Amino acid sequence: MYFEMEDVINLSHGAGGELMMELISEVIVKNIGLKRAQNGIGLEALDDGASLQFGEYEVVTSMDGHIVNPIFFPGGDIGRLAVAGTTNDIAMMGARPVALLDAIIVEEGFSKSDLNRIIQSMNSTAKEIDVAVIGGDIKVMPRGNIDKIVLATCGIGYVKKGHIVLDSGANPGDKVIITNDVGDHGISLLAHREGLSFQTKLKSDVAPIWNTIKAALDVGGVTAMKDPTRGGVASALNEIARKSKVSIWIDENELPIKKSVRAASEMLGLNPLEITCEGTAIICAQPDKADAIINAVKKTKYGKNARIIGIIKAEKPGYVFLKTMIGGTRIIDTPLGEPIPRVC
Amino acid sequence: MYFEMEDVINLSHGAGGELMMELISEVIVKNIGLKRAQNGIGLEALDDGASLQFGEYEVVTSMDGHIVNPIFFPGGDIGRLAVAGTTNDIAMMGARPVALLDAIIVEEGFSKSDLNRIIQSMNSTAKEIDVAVIGGDIKVMPRGNIDKIVLATCGIGYVKKGHIVLDSGANPGDKVIITNDVGDHGISLLAHREGLSFQTKLKSDVAPIWNTIKAALDVGGVTAMKDPTRGGVASALNEIARKSKVSIWIDENELPIKKSVRAASEMLGLNPLEITCEGTAIICAQPDKADAIINAVKKTKYGKNARIIGIIKAEKPGYVFLKTMIGGTRIIDTPLGEPIPRVC
Repeated sequence: MYFEMEDVINLSHGAGGELMMELISEVIVKNIGLKRAQNGIGLEALDDGASLQFGEYEVVTSMDGHIVNPIFFPGGDIGRLAVAGTTNDIAMMGARPVALLDAIIVEEGFSKSDLNRIIQSMNSTAKEIDVAVIGGDIKVMPRGNIDKIVLATCGIGYVKKGHIVLDSGANPGDKVIITNDVGDHGISLLAHREGLSFQTKLKSDVAPIWNTIKAALDVGGVTAMKDPTRGGVASALNEIARKSKVSIWIDENELPIKKSVRAASEMLGLNPLEITCEGTAIICAQPDKADAIINAVKKTKYGKNARIIGIIKAEKPGYVFLKTMIGGTRIIDTPLGEPIPRVC
Repeated sequence: MYFEMEDVINLSHGAGGELMMELISEVIVKNIGLKRAQNGIGLEALDDGASLQFGEYEVVTSMDGHIVNPIFFPGGDIGRLAVAGTTNDIAMMGARPVALLDAIIVEEGFSKSDLNRIIQSMNSTAKEIDVAVIGGDIKVMPRGNIDKIVLATCGIGYVKKGHIVLDSGANPGDKVIITNDVGDHGISLLAHREGLSFQTKLKSDVAPIWNTIKAALDVGGVTAMKDPTRGGVASALNEIARKSKVSIWIDENELPIKKSVRAASEMLGLNPLEITCEGTAIICAQPDKADAIINAVKKTKYGKNARIIGIIKAEKPGYVFLKTMIGGTRIIDTPLGEPIPRVC
């Protein structure tokens, strides 16, 4: 009986937390023999993307399956989400995204005009950062076998060999920068879906942030980056702390969280640090470059609220600490599984 | 009323025939502005994959969303199907597949041991052709929102710049080679699902055929290739004929179709030429190289039944003709939509 229960995959396994990491390492990483190609970054790095070296180039690639309810939401839709999510993952590796492929799976009966709207949204999102859509596939599943649409995207980008940015690159002394407000995507979706009254004020932050990231990279001194999507800021910081073997100390007073996001989080019993962001990046930077990076990032469309939210230390490697508004310090863990209500 | 009907996507739109081409060109290609990157082959080519040039390399990529019922079938499973399908598409561009990414979307309640089995199958299929699984993503959808599992895969390969093989490369005088029997995958799936009595004799041909294709490429003289997946041999030949602006003349006597496949096709009212193959390629070759290619291909695991099935002519460009067993000649069209019963 016990084993039967254990054999089942539940929603928490897809939520970006510890249970997902467990499933990925037990069922996927363990079963795969060849995990890297062309001397690049492979599966075992569990970074935002993987890479392959071709001559002078490090070709960076990242893939995601997108599901979201509702598929059209305040501030975006599944098409914008897919393009932004995938190209942002490539940007997080320090690489310029250049192309995208997609696999669309729709339910029989899905409306052509909705698909049209989604593809147009993919196009306009990709256009913002000069990314081409170079290929794809469409399948139709019989009615009832799928909820409307699944949109998988694979992005391709490149960076000069040796210039890739990894989760494992952060060093003691580095500053931790956040480029945008925290929690807007997840909370706006939940509010919209649950019909909460503050929904009108809040929109998803979903955006392709390559130009913001490029501004930071052009300054130099970027040591690690991560976009806080599934599992939110808490998951992203913990991954950097664990992979870089450092501790991260965040100041709650510096965290850019909108009042409406804070209020909604309290009402729903959620921790804003565990909520999905789709247009925000965490950048670890050498201390002497941090201010110049902030200045450069602030000039870009999606970096206006950029600020330093913490620092990196050598002590207690693998932990993330929050200096709270009321003066204490507490550990921020990787969320275990799914926030209730779930976002995607 | 009429427009409402027209707005709906149905199963035929995903079946690899004319209706799918219409949907792709109307809803996808038309809405995308930037269709190619890095001077490569892009979306508008609608080839088996797309490409990007990096220095001396042409990086080739292809993406597919896989759904199949049942997910475990005689001769394979969705994992083997995904890896073979995607790497075969890269091979069809004349490129060596080296890496794969996946996006797995499972239904809440899906069993870990089934996922385990699928990932192991992906691994052993990839290993056959030394392809690494370098990255991926997993999402879990609430119960009832999806039928078990969707598996999207994106493959990456490379070929020396200028050596890519396109659907548009076939020339009058070329021979048309097929590397394996026709229809085994689709018919075995249908037979298994419908519980037909001949099911025990038949297995899917699903296989990663890069080594077979490499044998042909090493000989030289390959002008165009296509694997007859959705829409079968009929679709594949029509695409080559249309894009290469030639006609293709196939001899029915030379078509390698197993007796059991022929019998089942007749019983189900299906044309074997419209049935999905997953371990077969059509190779167009310069006439002086065709025999050497056949010899080389026959020495590989998945090329033992290779043979010449037809020739290419300049007259009546865009058409595919079948010289029938009883002596006549008829046009083979691209299938309109879905064979009934459907395969995937």
